[in-house]
Amino acid sequence: MHFGILGSGSWATALAKILTDSGEHIHWYVRNDDTIAHLNHRRHNPHYLSSAYFNTSHLQLSSNINYVIEACDVLIIVIPSAYVHQSLSALNKDAFTGKKIISAIKGILPEKNQLLNEYLEENFNVALKDYFSVLGPCHAEEVAAEKLSYLTFSGLDAGITEKIAIHFNTEFIKTITNPDVLGVQYAAVLKNIYALGAGIAHGLEYGDNFLSVYIANAADEMVKFLRQVKHEESSANLNYAASVYLGDLLVTCYSLYSRNRMLGNMIGKGYSVKAAQLELGMVAEGYNASKCIHITNETIKVNIPVADIIYEILWKQLQPAAGFETIENLLV
Amino acid sequence: MHFGILGSGSWATALAKILTDSGEHIHWYVRNDDTIAHLNHRRHNPHYLSSAYFNTSHLQLSSNINYVIEACDVLIIVIPSAYVHQSLSALNKDAFTGKKIISAIKGILPEKNQLLNEYLEENFNVALKDYFSVLGPCHAEEVAAEKLSYLTFSGLDAGITEKIAIHFNTEFIKTITNPDVLGVQYAAVLKNIYALGAGIAHGLEYGDNFLSVYIANAADEMVKFLRQVKHEESSANLNYAASVYLGDLLVTCYSLYSRNRMLGNMIGKGYSVKAAQLELGMVAEGYNASKCIHITNETIKVNIPVADIIYEILWKQLQPAAGFETIENLLV
Repeated sequence: MHFGILGSGSWATALAKILTDSGEHIHWYVRNDDTIAHLNHRRHNPHYLSSAYFNTSHLQLSSNINYVIEACDVLIIVIPSAYVHQSLSALNKDAFTGKKIISAIKGILPEKNQLLNEYLEENFNVALKDYFSVLGPCHAEEVAAEKLSYLTFSGLDAGITEKIAIHFNTEFIKTITNPDVLGVQYAAVLKNIYALGAGIAHGLEYGDNFLSVYIANAADEMVKFLRQVKHEESSANLNYAASVYLGDLLVTCYSLYSRNRMLGNMIGKGYSVKAAQLELGMVAEGYNASKCIHITNETIKVNIPVADIIYEILWKQLQPAAGFETIENLLV
Repeated sequence: MHFGILGSGSWATALAKILTDSGEHIHWYVRNDDTIAHLNHRRHNPHYLSSAYFNTSHLQLSSNINYVIEACDVLIIVIPSAYVHQSLSALNKDAFTGKKIISAIKGILPEKNQLLNEYLEENFNVALKDYFSVLGPCHAEEVAAEKLSYLTFSGLDAGITEKIAIHFNTEFIKTITNPDVLGVQYAAVLKNIYALGAGIAHGLEYGDNFLSVYIANAADEMVKFLRQVKHEESSANLNYAASVYLGDLLVTCYSLYSRNRMLGNMIGKGYSVKAAQLELGMVAEGYNASKCIHITNETIKVNIPVADIIYEILWKQLQPAAGFETIENLLV
């Protein structure tokens, strides 16, 4: 397997670090030529996760996305979900034919409210059997700091999923496999919504006791949604307390690294949603996620009142304090 | 209902604060006459939760336990589990006849490895129908700080449980009821073990990513144990993501107030178990809890490898780093 990475943010940089640490020689598409020059000469990404240094003899960097795709048979797409369409729309329709795709994005594509696999199937004829996902809990900052972390790879075929996962094992990364390639993607979307809400609660000065009750109830909502949303039959008896579901929810809600939590905290402190986003200057996936889940739930109609209220705060000008007064009375 | 509190630690002080805030006139057994004098004249407990001030016209303090028991029809026992036997053993066998008992202790009595209800039944003929428990997630410090918290009251009779719970509602406390009076007590014991382990992991310098995976797996172990240990039939379809189960596990594992986490942190940093306990100077319930669950599990034989390893670290001189290397490979 020859791996190519499409994207150059902090999570892309962390995945490049993991693969090269495990001995892989990889291709890496980075849009900006200055960043490529810096990576080649100074051995780190100047913009994201700059404390991670690379063995550059293992990196083949290019600002030509077609060259990277052609050179590799496994492509890791790790572009913020809001920018996937503009990054990939110029590619030939058969660009991914015969390739395996690993999604490392943590959101729904907002244009048509699609998971990446749906987008790739519609636009590039990528079949679900050739599609995999890699998810945490794995904040990029801790990859750079060489703290032990777990990655879960999901795919329909257990054998191929396992073969892909092996390439990511390092001294500091353990890998897990899972068949629920659709469900884990929804879990990754939902956790960002709840983490944004946890940030709002923190900003409103709720304490640890409340936060733990809120997150426990969020975990319950998440499982209810996952049981109802479309998933493969092999995923009927999943352990939803596993790291890729509950673990990722926990790290995203509790870790100070979480950008969703940061955005929520500012909203709880009184910033408008717009002003908080401008101030942070980065994409907090939970914002779009709350709208996408709201739309998806118009069809499947799961009872997820906490996610509904966070959507109202983010998109319908509901006052955060008023929203959380309602949430207070829903928790068990 | 006339409430009496037996105990004067920080959780006892928090419960006294909640009941008097909600307008109750209560009796309160405090062993030390100097503490009683301080509470009466300075309006706060000098030793625990000293930032909580009382309306003393609502307090009837006494160092005579028999007087307090006789004066009340609902007694809240809130004594560290290791001291319950020595505190109650001198009472008449019929001292609790006709009374309702609320357990606010968070451990198993070590002498015979009993839950408080089993001890009270054996020694005082207290029937399970007259026995209730009150549990968090509710760190006492946040009660003093008037941060919104949730208390869960558990008892066999939903109507009586509800009637008791109502007396604890205040501006800052919301109450929940639950039929699983046996299960919630085991949950409270187990969470202290896992929180102690979370502290060890922190002391060993694992990061947020690992901690979230560890806690998710701990939640899974806890539910497996609760499904297997003896419980009433009414508890067959419980929501284990509710605050009294998952929420309490989360706050105990994540909050810096948790004494189990503090003890674990010192052990992870290299203190011996004995030295860490001496240094902290307070009872971390997770220490005895790990032994009690180990003994209980010799009969029911649930697969709880994480709790087993923490027991080995605390009681069998297993090196913390070696124990966690094993745990690393168990997590999913």
